[in-house]
Amino acid sequence: MRYSFNIAPASRHMDAIIQQHIDGKTKPQGALGQLERVAAQLARIQASQNIQLGPLHHLVFAADHGVCAQGVSPYPSEVTRQMVTNFCNGGAAINVFCRQQDINMTVVDAGIRGDSLPPHPNLLDHRIAEGTADFTAEPAMTPEQCLSAVEFGAELARMKLAEGSSVLSFGEMGIGNTTAGAALMAACLKIPPHDCVGRGTGANDAMLVHKAEVVEQALVRHRDQLTSGAAIMQHLGGLELAMMAGAMAATAEVGKVILVDGFLASTALLTLWRDHPAILDYCVFSHLSVEKAHHSLLLALDVEPLLQLDLRLGEGSGAVLAWPLVQAAAAFFNDMASFADAGVSEQAPDEA
Amino acid sequence: MRYSFNIAPASRHMDAIIQQHIDGKTKPQGALGQLERVAAQLARIQASQNIQLGPLHHLVFAADHGVCAQGVSPYPSEVTRQMVTNFCNGGAAINVFCRQQDINMTVVDAGIRGDSLPPHPNLLDHRIAEGTADFTAEPAMTPEQCLSAVEFGAELARMKLAEGSSVLSFGEMGIGNTTAGAALMAACLKIPPHDCVGRGTGANDAMLVHKAEVVEQALVRHRDQLTSGAAIMQHLGGLELAMMAGAMAATAEVGKVILVDGFLASTALLTLWRDHPAILDYCVFSHLSVEKAHHSLLLALDVEPLLQLDLRLGEGSGAVLAWPLVQAAAAFFNDMASFADAGVSEQAPDEA
Repeated sequence: MRYSFNIAPASRHMDAIIQQHIDGKTKPQGALGQLERVAAQLARIQASQNIQLGPLHHLVFAADHGVCAQGVSPYPSEVTRQMVTNFCNGGAAINVFCRQQDINMTVVDAGIRGDSLPPHPNLLDHRIAEGTADFTAEPAMTPEQCLSAVEFGAELARMKLAEGSSVLSFGEMGIGNTTAGAALMAACLKIPPHDCVGRGTGANDAMLVHKAEVVEQALVRHRDQLTSGAAIMQHLGGLELAMMAGAMAATAEVGKVILVDGFLASTALLTLWRDHPAILDYCVFSHLSVEKAHHSLLLALDVEPLLQLDLRLGEGSGAVLAWPLVQAAAAFFNDMASFADAGVSEQAPDEA
Repeated sequence: MRYSFNIAPASRHMDAIIQQHIDGKTKPQGALGQLERVAAQLARIQASQNIQLGPLHHLVFAADHGVCAQGVSPYPSEVTRQMVTNFCNGGAAINVFCRQQDINMTVVDAGIRGDSLPPHPNLLDHRIAEGTADFTAEPAMTPEQCLSAVEFGAELARMKLAEGSSVLSFGEMGIGNTTAGAALMAACLKIPPHDCVGRGTGANDAMLVHKAEVVEQALVRHRDQLTSGAAIMQHLGGLELAMMAGAMAATAEVGKVILVDGFLASTALLTLWRDHPAILDYCVFSHLSVEKAHHSLLLALDVEPLLQLDLRLGEGSGAVLAWPLVQAAAAFFNDMASFADAGVSEQAPDEA
């Protein structure tokens, strides 16, 4: 199984001009650290000396996971539905962080167990199934389900970008999804399950060992099918993660910026990276999760996150919290005076 | 020499209620990581279940350093004046970051070499001397100069707090001041100069060795006088650092919050901490500087910074960049729904 995205690398043709632009600002060279790295990336993506960000739009995808039948989470699946209701009512952390920064947020029911939730202006109903199948017994999704989720995510991202955002961020809610994420990571990076599982919302030691066994079981069962990132998503992923992957791919396809949250967003991205490595050019990594495997995942991609706040919440909270730093990177790049403009002496070259 | 501040520890009497308040929010326990720690600290300081932050006011203190005669910086002292002009004209990084977040900023000339700068609405002229004396030969300041700087900083902080801020942040500009900061750190923490110096705005290897020698020389010369934090500031500090220390002390004295920037702000704080250890109760540490000694300084205080962005700019840039995270901590504490309010199932206690 393959998706049909066309993701081209960002052109390097302006890199020297961009670096010169940054080094001309009234500060010691490199003194803005990671903000300089992010500014250079944004300018490269936009091939411009004036970065245009526009407002951030935050998309949260929610769905349930058949693998919960294996006892991989201390919370019952009902919490997915309860938390989505909480998102609609504005009471969750992600609501608070979005309100603080005037960020618009859309929540998608990609496949929560049970009946449809009551209609709500901020909730999109795109239920593909009542959660995934238990991937220890069968593929998490059928190819059709997975493609449908990916395509809806892509369409939604295109719509939000058309409304004027240059950056999208993505969050998820799905009890059991750190187990799915661990499976995606193990399959994409060929790292043993033991090193891909973490405590998620609060698994104890025994549950942690069990999560690794469950992932191992799934990897063995689907071994011969895991031949592409798309196939890995179909067999081991989640409806919300497939939808997120589709939204990420569509964002990169049109040269816009993906603000990547923590562990789960990174695993959705991994499945795309496996088939379309150029997607990394469009990704700003926002946060290093406490979920212990996230560190090795980011190392494998050779990328650095902006924040390390010991978050392990999901919902895309790390991405939204990092947004002011992305804005700061664009702001210094666009608006700081240069040494020449400000009449400030540069460092003597022999001391540099 | 002593200052006359009265800094009482923040009361712990509401700690249990505050923790309960945080743990009742609709998230796995501890899932908001460092934001939970900051929220608990703010609530403790305010002894309240509703944190009131108000707007941040940012104060930048600028002055020159006599120790520049020893060749400790790759930039000439003139750059202090040039950068303050840049602050007034709105072209520096700190201007850009303050504008991005609607933060008001005041710049103080505490003792820049040469004539007074032209009057400017955002610049306070409180020139105590044309820079400090070279502390390898004599005390950096006279006791009167140091006290005058501390008192003006305190008065300025009280004025800004009276205008409605509950949090102040502090930045500095002063070519040569990382050498002064290294001397303050070495004297306050009794750490060898070699482990307190860093590259500052861009010192090369030879200059780094030289900086350590210069600090060692000053420590030996003033050895018998370094009997309090205040005396350490007077002999080894800077006019801008003394003024910042005064502003920090006055902030803590009235139970308001100090948002501590990187290396230099931390060294100004160290001199207060040495005489008034309770001041740490009021400090939120914003950023781990690239300046290599900053890590050991924060370890010695047993505190954790919110950001690690490889910044080494000064101006208080790390503090201002961390402000949205402090606001996020207050926002989740005040505005997130509780499990009870939202009808969300809590984690089974035996799995916690």
